[in-house]
Amino acid sequence: MSNLLDGIKPTLLMGPGPSCVYDEVYAALGKPTIGHLDPYFIKIMDAVKEDLMAAIGTGNHLTMPMSGTGSSGMETCFVNLVEPGDKVLILTNGVFGKRMEDVAGRLGAEVDSVHFEWGTPVLLEEVEKKLKGKSYAIVAVVHAETSTGVRNPVAEVGRLVRSSGALYLVDCVTSLGGIPVRMDEWGADALYSGTQKCLSCPPGLAPLSFSDRAVNRVKARKSKVPNWYLDLTMIMHYWEGNTRAYHHTAPINMIYALYAALRHFLEEGQDKAHARHQDAHERLVAGLEKLGISMYVDKASRLPMLNAVTIPQGVDDAGVRSRLLKEYGIEIGNGLGTLAGKIWRIGLMGHTARPENVDRLLAALASCIK
Amino acid sequence: MSNLLDGIKPTLLMGPGPSCVYDEVYAALGKPTIGHLDPYFIKIMDAVKEDLMAAIGTGNHLTMPMSGTGSSGMETCFVNLVEPGDKVLILTNGVFGKRMEDVAGRLGAEVDSVHFEWGTPVLLEEVEKKLKGKSYAIVAVVHAETSTGVRNPVAEVGRLVRSSGALYLVDCVTSLGGIPVRMDEWGADALYSGTQKCLSCPPGLAPLSFSDRAVNRVKARKSKVPNWYLDLTMIMHYWEGNTRAYHHTAPINMIYALYAALRHFLEEGQDKAHARHQDAHERLVAGLEKLGISMYVDKASRLPMLNAVTIPQGVDDAGVRSRLLKEYGIEIGNGLGTLAGKIWRIGLMGHTARPENVDRLLAALASCIK
Repeated sequence: MSNLLDGIKPTLLMGPGPSCVYDEVYAALGKPTIGHLDPYFIKIMDAVKEDLMAAIGTGNHLTMPMSGTGSSGMETCFVNLVEPGDKVLILTNGVFGKRMEDVAGRLGAEVDSVHFEWGTPVLLEEVEKKLKGKSYAIVAVVHAETSTGVRNPVAEVGRLVRSSGALYLVDCVTSLGGIPVRMDEWGADALYSGTQKCLSCPPGLAPLSFSDRAVNRVKARKSKVPNWYLDLTMIMHYWEGNTRAYHHTAPINMIYALYAALRHFLEEGQDKAHARHQDAHERLVAGLEKLGISMYVDKASRLPMLNAVTIPQGVDDAGVRSRLLKEYGIEIGNGLGTLAGKIWRIGLMGHTARPENVDRLLAALASCIK
Repeated sequence: MSNLLDGIKPTLLMGPGPSCVYDEVYAALGKPTIGHLDPYFIKIMDAVKEDLMAAIGTGNHLTMPMSGTGSSGMETCFVNLVEPGDKVLILTNGVFGKRMEDVAGRLGAEVDSVHFEWGTPVLLEEVEKKLKGKSYAIVAVVHAETSTGVRNPVAEVGRLVRSSGALYLVDCVTSLGGIPVRMDEWGADALYSGTQKCLSCPPGLAPLSFSDRAVNRVKARKSKVPNWYLDLTMIMHYWEGNTRAYHHTAPINMIYALYAALRHFLEEGQDKAHARHQDAHERLVAGLEKLGISMYVDKASRLPMLNAVTIPQGVDDAGVRSRLLKEYGIEIGNGLGTLAGKIWRIGLMGHTARPENVDRLLAALASCIK
């Protein structure tokens, strides 16, 4: 019986995630599994919590990784905060805003949304108008729209939302580690992320944080959280306090990996890590322009870690991506939804965001499109 | 900054899970991360699916690991199958039966339950009586009750349930890999497990399978599945077919680990693996009896991989467990719920189920209780 794992080829991951994983993180994954209630494991949990608080800029006690991939963080926020009939406003300019609408709607929320053209950012005046017209329980937005490469003005939106009295929910799946995430400064009440983007850890956990206002909202619910697995009122007793209560068995080795990834980020220094992403992005843009490939998003709203580029006319979308992967060992991403066939998504996330990787891609791309 | 991961001590995991992990599984975890839509990763997914089908004894197409720990498998079954007002019967004789009642209730099911004394099995005559009195949409039971060490007669219950017309849901979290799991023979329609028990993989995934009857029930729902993250109608398009549609980013390295763990189980041979569990169990029981420690469960219903033992009078429950961990590097489990302080739970799961481990525990236990 052949072992498929022996045939895995190291790949330069330049898609929308996962990104290339740090050696320390691979090493962490293989550390001996210990019990999920072992006092030493609880020490590691506490360190992960503290590092996460630093990474996302919050003093929130309820800060920890959920036992699922990034989308489980989205699900956790809505399922804990929404009660049937709650008015929820979603600011949508891509797939992940649309996903929020779907998630909230399934939970019985009365969902309103403001749609912005894909590839453009959320506009504050539209948000302001909407908030004046109606009172919302929750307003939600995506910081870094992975489907379009757009950065939304989350700090400015936060000021509008806070003065409206609504809870403010921000998706930081792709932003965390690549551009500043400052939960408390933004006035955000609920925030989630993923591990496989700019933290350069494999997928499997969803870092999450709730403000005291959000926790109070959950505690004041009239009905039980309609999801046992993601019920924060129980999970918090595993991640907090002197006696840790069993809820579900935490994904122990993935938590080792997140510990190592967060240490890497904080030891490099947040500012330095962000600057590394920006530098790699600028190098990529300059190189693409030389190849005659243009960016899909205006400069002011571009994300450094997710570069949406217009596929040049006459170039075979799937053919180029397949050649890059097979011949050059480089993965880039396709367009989603209405952008399928129109854009590629080039990720410069975490460990991937280095000049030598940018150059390797540019050279490969040049020979694939000529 | 010291690295906590360097201080992790290899532990002999003899609690209710996680169990000791195979070296091949640790190695698998550290293999290079590749894309979740990479054709080579899809090959690995297909192999995992095929091996899972063999391990749980089913021909069901919808068989794959959910991206969460074992409890997310429970959540997935109920959230996909239950619509508000559905009549659900839970056969309960421990914590995990109680958990099912909670999960189903949160989803709006009309939950009935038959309770059996903890430490004793589900009785067929009670089930038969209950099924005669009312028509149920779903009947659910736990195969191996991790909280009590009891094996429930799932094949016999299955015959009763199938003739009643209800869907049959079986929790195989602790049984899979340690005693035979034969989904199709039992007539089960929905089944889930965990990775960190007798498969000896770290926690993080929930193997799951739905019969065609169950899939049809999901497809005939009047309302959307009220959980985006666990919605099988979408997830099946990532795990099946010629074109794989992105849903969420799969926990890639954990899937490598499950691949390696399943291969280990199937290459050892299912019968041999089950016999190894039984042998270790019998050795443990004989040794405990010599120490004057008695089993909590009658012989006919004992699980080999989860041994509930009565804490001898005058012995300090937490003190002994703490000494075992600190001085001998062995973890055993405490009692849950009404059994707290009354029993210990000694796991002999997967890689842990070996005579040398049994002997090491018996020697350590002898010196801790004398």
